[in-house]
Amino acid sequence: MIVEMRKRAPQAEIDDVVLKAKSLGFSVQLNLGTDKTVIAILGGNTGQISPDSFAVLPGVENVTRIMKPYKLASREFKARNTVVKVGDISIGGNKLVIMAGPCAVESQKQLEEAAKIVKAAGAVILRGGAFKPRSSPFSFQGLEQTGLEYLQEVKRKFGLPVVTEVVDPHQVALVARYADILQVGARNMQNFSLLTELGKIKHPVILKRGLASTVTEWLTAADYLLAGGNNNVILCERGIRTFEDSTRFSMDISSIPVIKRFSHLPVIVDPSHAAGHYSLVPAIARAAVAAGADGLLIEVHPNPKEALVDGLQSLTPSDFKRLMGEIKSIAGVLGREV
Amino acid sequence: MIVEMRKRAPQAEIDDVVLKAKSLGFSVQLNLGTDKTVIAILGGNTGQISPDSFAVLPGVENVTRIMKPYKLASREFKARNTVVKVGDISIGGNKLVIMAGPCAVESQKQLEEAAKIVKAAGAVILRGGAFKPRSSPFSFQGLEQTGLEYLQEVKRKFGLPVVTEVVDPHQVALVARYADILQVGARNMQNFSLLTELGKIKHPVILKRGLASTVTEWLTAADYLLAGGNNNVILCERGIRTFEDSTRFSMDISSIPVIKRFSHLPVIVDPSHAAGHYSLVPAIARAAVAAGADGLLIEVHPNPKEALVDGLQSLTPSDFKRLMGEIKSIAGVLGREV
Amino acid sequence: MIVEMRKRAPQAEIDDVVLKAKSLGFSVQLNLGTDKTVIAILGGNTGQISPDSFAVLPGVENVTRIMKPYKLASREFKARNTVVKVGDISIGGNKLVIMAGPCAVESQKQLEEAAKIVKAAGAVILRGGAFKPRSSPFSFQGLEQTGLEYLQEVKRKFGLPVVTEVVDPHQVALVARYADILQVGARNMQNFSLLTELGKIKHPVILKRGLASTVTEWLTAADYLLAGGNNNVILCERGIRTFEDSTRFSMDISSIPVIKRFSHLPVIVDPSHAAGHYSLVPAIARAAVAAGADGLLIEVHPNPKEALVDGLQSLTPSDFKRLMGEIKSIAGVLGREV
Amino acid sequence: MIVEMRKRAPQAEIDDVVLKAKSLGFSVQLNLGTDKTVIAILGGNTGQISPDSFAVLPGVENVTRIMKPYKLASREFKARNTVVKVGDISIGGNKLVIMAGPCAVESQKQLEEAAKIVKAAGAVILRGGAFKPRSSPFSFQGLEQTGLEYLQEVKRKFGLPVVTEVVDPHQVALVARYADILQVGARNMQNFSLLTELGKIKHPVILKRGLASTVTEWLTAADYLLAGGNNNVILCERGIRTFEDSTRFSMDISSIPVIKRFSHLPVIVDPSHAAGHYSLVPAIARAAVAAGADGLLIEVHPNPKEALVDGLQSLTPSDFKRLMGEIKSIAGVLGREV
Repeated sequence: MIVEMRKRAPQAEIDDVVLKAKSLGFSVQLNLGTDKTVIAILGGNTGQISPDSFAVLPGVENVTRIMKPYKLASREFKARNTVVKVGDISIGGNKLVIMAGPCAVESQKQLEEAAKIVKAAGAVILRGGAFKPRSSPFSFQGLEQTGLEYLQEVKRKFGLPVVTEVVDPHQVALVARYADILQVGARNMQNFSLLTELGKIKHPVILKRGLASTVTEWLTAADYLLAGGNNNVILCERGIRTFEDSTRFSMDISSIPVIKRFSHLPVIVDPSHAAGHYSLVPAIARAAVAAGADGLLIEVHPNPKEALVDGLQSLTPSDFKRLMGEIKSIAGVLGREV
Repeated sequence: MIVEMRKRAPQAEIDDVVLKAKSLGFSVQLNLGTDKTVIAILGGNTGQISPDSFAVLPGVENVTRIMKPYKLASREFKARNTVVKVGDISIGGNKLVIMAGPCAVESQKQLEEAAKIVKAAGAVILRGGAFKPRSSPFSFQGLEQTGLEYLQEVKRKFGLPVVTEVVDPHQVALVARYADILQVGARNMQNFSLLTELGKIKHPVILKRGLASTVTEWLTAADYLLAGGNNNVILCERGIRTFEDSTRFSMDISSIPVIKRFSHLPVIVDPSHAAGHYSLVPAIARAAVAAGADGLLIEVHPNPKEALVDGLQSLTPSDFKRLMGEIKSIAGVLGREV
Repeated sequence: MIVEMRKRAPQAEIDDVVLKAKSLGFSVQLNLGTDKTVIAILGGNTGQISPDSFAVLPGVENVTRIMKPYKLASREFKARNTVVKVGDISIGGNKLVIMAGPCAVESQKQLEEAAKIVKAAGAVILRGGAFKPRSSPFSFQGLEQTGLEYLQEVKRKFGLPVVTEVVDPHQVALVARYADILQVGARNMQNFSLLTELGKIKHPVILKRGLASTVTEWLTAADYLLAGGNNNVILCERGIRTFEDSTRFSMDISSIPVIKRFSHLPVIVDPSHAAGHYSLVPAIARAAVAAGADGLLIEVHPNPKEALVDGLQSLTPSDFKRLMGEIKSIAGVLGREV
Repeated sequence: MIVEMRKRAPQAEIDDVVLKAKSLGFSVQLNLGTDKTVIAILGGNTGQISPDSFAVLPGVENVTRIMKPYKLASREFKARNTVVKVGDISIGGNKLVIMAGPCAVESQKQLEEAAKIVKAAGAVILRGGAFKPRSSPFSFQGLEQTGLEYLQEVKRKFGLPVVTEVVDPHQVALVARYADILQVGARNMQNFSLLTELGKIKHPVILKRGLASTVTEWLTAADYLLAGGNNNVILCERGIRTFEDSTRFSMDISSIPVIKRFSHLPVIVDPSHAAGHYSLVPAIARAAVAAGADGLLIEVHPNPKEALVDGLQSLTPSDFKRLMGEIKSIAGVLGREV
């Protein structure tokens, strides 16, 4: 942490900063300029201290954090890639993992058809929402527990592990009984009550990026899960909110190499929510694989026109099949498989 | 809702759109251009239908929603301003309501000192966080239930109603036993499990704007509370996330007149979280009052340098007192009181 | 254009809107709801009329534009892809076009080395800035005319057409004497004086996306060039400004399929400026090709450590060579060549 | 500047950084951690050196700039407020300066009516655009030189100094012959050719904030004018681009106290362009004054319904008069006059 004092700050104010740093267990080094003092605060955990602790002191002009605020999710903490296991599927290894299925579980029949289609095309995990967080109270809110039961049913029938969203900290145990992977939606990335509960279980968790969260905040949220003892964390980029209005969200494709540089956690991409329109999904999905994503989470619906939720961004079975072919080839270029 | 068909879309595709609209209970009107058909879908509730229901149909180029997606929060639904009562205090009436206190409850002593200071300066409601949602798991998370007890104690002693944050749907009943107003933080604006629980009680709720939420999404989130039967909703603007980095968030001052135009709900402003630095708080607070806000939610700490959370954005007692004087005069210019 | 009147707007206000529409040569259709009138304004050029012309009239609640404001750049105006010719190179055809070279022309030697390297690796156009728009007046501003002369020299020697930026409307003729393609930088996307001059020549123009411009505004800026009579317009996505701070700009990868859907113009991608760091460039470049870009504009420097401008985002010769191999394979997956 | 080396970076890489710093005339101080070296680079002008010069060196993990990149515009460079003189009007002093008039000069009659109205209400400077940068080539582009002549005519008749926009570096001399203040529009804030020309004259310049520019970039652009020798720089906040779509731009009200803290330059506010709708303008204007702005630049039209440009955001004469009354009272609260 670098503390920059105001020009000609009196010695007493400089001393106060030094004292505070030492009281927190840090060492300090003074860089005396001609008319301005800059104080470097050194130690292993300066990233976990708020810069405000120093910025609030009299005579301080500015405080700059050098260390990142996240710790357990960082590649400095753990150099080797984390590989998350779901049965015999590895997420974060050489093989890309494709998770596909409808946005919402609507009926057992719909889910079965979806499972058949996505499995045939090469997906290895089935997605489907039972609890649907919807922006309007007048929209379909999901089948809830019945939806979970359909997921379990279809999972048994097709041998596909399932991923579904959990929205309430008190439903973590319930959802974990049915699902293989629990998903935290973008709007809940900083729902710390929920993260705390998910940190206590061992199920793999997909942590979607908050729609206004920086990569740094995203990795700091992952620290909640890791600090709780759950190491099975999978990050999922799904687009951020910007001024651009031709897509629902702006896919931040650069976050893939950024995550690979700064974190050991696997990262997958959801091209469907970012696009908001099926015609844009294949291009974004291909880009994600080319950028180095460890997998995809894609919405596929047996009949998008009849979907109760997000049909517009769902691929048809034939479009999904074509995309899977392209993805396999692009993965091959990077020395990876699907 | 306006459905624009692709150039030279065949009649069968147009018929499908009309059929779908009629099956949902809407009437339609066709605007035939020379090479393009535009279909107007009419009815009282088109705002609550997703445009995607039509956009997914073959031949559709674009769908535009004309009606807003929120309903109960709109001024069209209720023309007269809502006034929320907390004891004999009215929020949304002619008198501005100032809520002030520390970011986090740290001790009974700290809270008492804060209460004494803010009451003397003219604040009528005491704020203080017991459950603190923090971006890092390594930060102070609040005193939790003990914090609630301190709030209750100080409330009795000073006769100041209290507002505090609730972060978990299963703690709504607990928090409601201690607090007069329950606050939904910005990161929980779309925590629909929490909103649903808060819709079931009668306590006033402060709904903070999500940091990447449009005014429209904010009012749609308010609909969750209103649809549940809780009419005591107070909106709170606290800044949005933008590219600007000299403040923590960008105070969207224009949202005040926008809310006043489109909604009947009272709106207050939190200048402290937007600013992130105490030196900027008074200017933003004055601007909020001048723009027509119904009140302020301000952080004041007896000794900001010692604060465990957000001391940097807290006003000192003397700064707060000076600000209260300015605010009273500006309110007077608008024909209002404090 | 859809004009929504306020609830119970008097007939005289409705008549005024109709009258205005008719005076502008449009036809109208009234959609009478139970308590609200919606007026559809129809005609071929409603996209080029400002919605404000109607929004300003008394009794108008809201105006929604259905037609896009751009015209000549739209796929509705011209269905077939535009292919821009630079000598025997086609931009926008089946073959991807790679343009590479240093950010700034620093010396003839530096430019020659760069040309040799990028040509050997498969680039077909040389980039290099002579006029450098820099955010600080204290930074290196480019070699200006001398830089143009070096470009011409190196072009002759290596048989590589060159692209360079033009920043002043009065230098268009000068730059056009030396360069094969003229580039409009992101900060000048809405410098309409410059666009107007470039519309008068026939040289191909690369129009970089403004860093806070929507795709719609970008295509409307392209209309300036096309309306002036210059059809040789190449769009270049280079990242937009968002709250994310781990990259210099956020590459909006989705704009590639969006442009392909709504416009006939070729679109290339500059991964270097978006990334801001060389380690992220290859992933973004691969993603761009996978998303369907028609080419790349990449910064390559013989010795990035010595670069006067933007060395941090420049690829080394060996990194560029490796990337070219990957790009060729990914293009092949999409049935395209490099 | 703080250079953070990678964990266990070899001594040779550390030496290279030190060598580069010394070659640029800086002194260095090494902060040796247990497994990581942090190098502080010290000297008076580190703000004007790009962090990339160091970030590109092998072994460097991260570089943080401590000094701001702007210099001449900073309060550290000049502690006392700059007051810009236009005849006997002072901008940046105790008295607020109101500049008002139509968006575009449409006719001599329209301009005269506007001048009469705004002068009667208390405005002291007349605004009006002769050159209009419009996002579509099919929109009205202004009366150009004829517009300048009308401005001059009306200025003589009413004794009101005039401000008008200049869009082309080669028209600076022309516009300066007619106008008292030259305005740089938001889209030209980083048009460095234009800024360079304006730095050479002595006329006051209003530098509007770019719609995606940080305060830091805005002050760095001001450095172009100041470095050229023109000290008569007036900043103008006019809203930034965000995701919010209920206003045209988001007024960044906090930039007023931020500018006052970090710069000596006067700052005024344009509430009209941010709002985009006349009904929102008064609230934003009042907020600007309450936040400490030194003046306002407001659009007023004798008859907004007939305006050729931006009528929707123009105040009517009676609305403007009412606003002026409110503004005077709010200024009074802050100990200022209008």
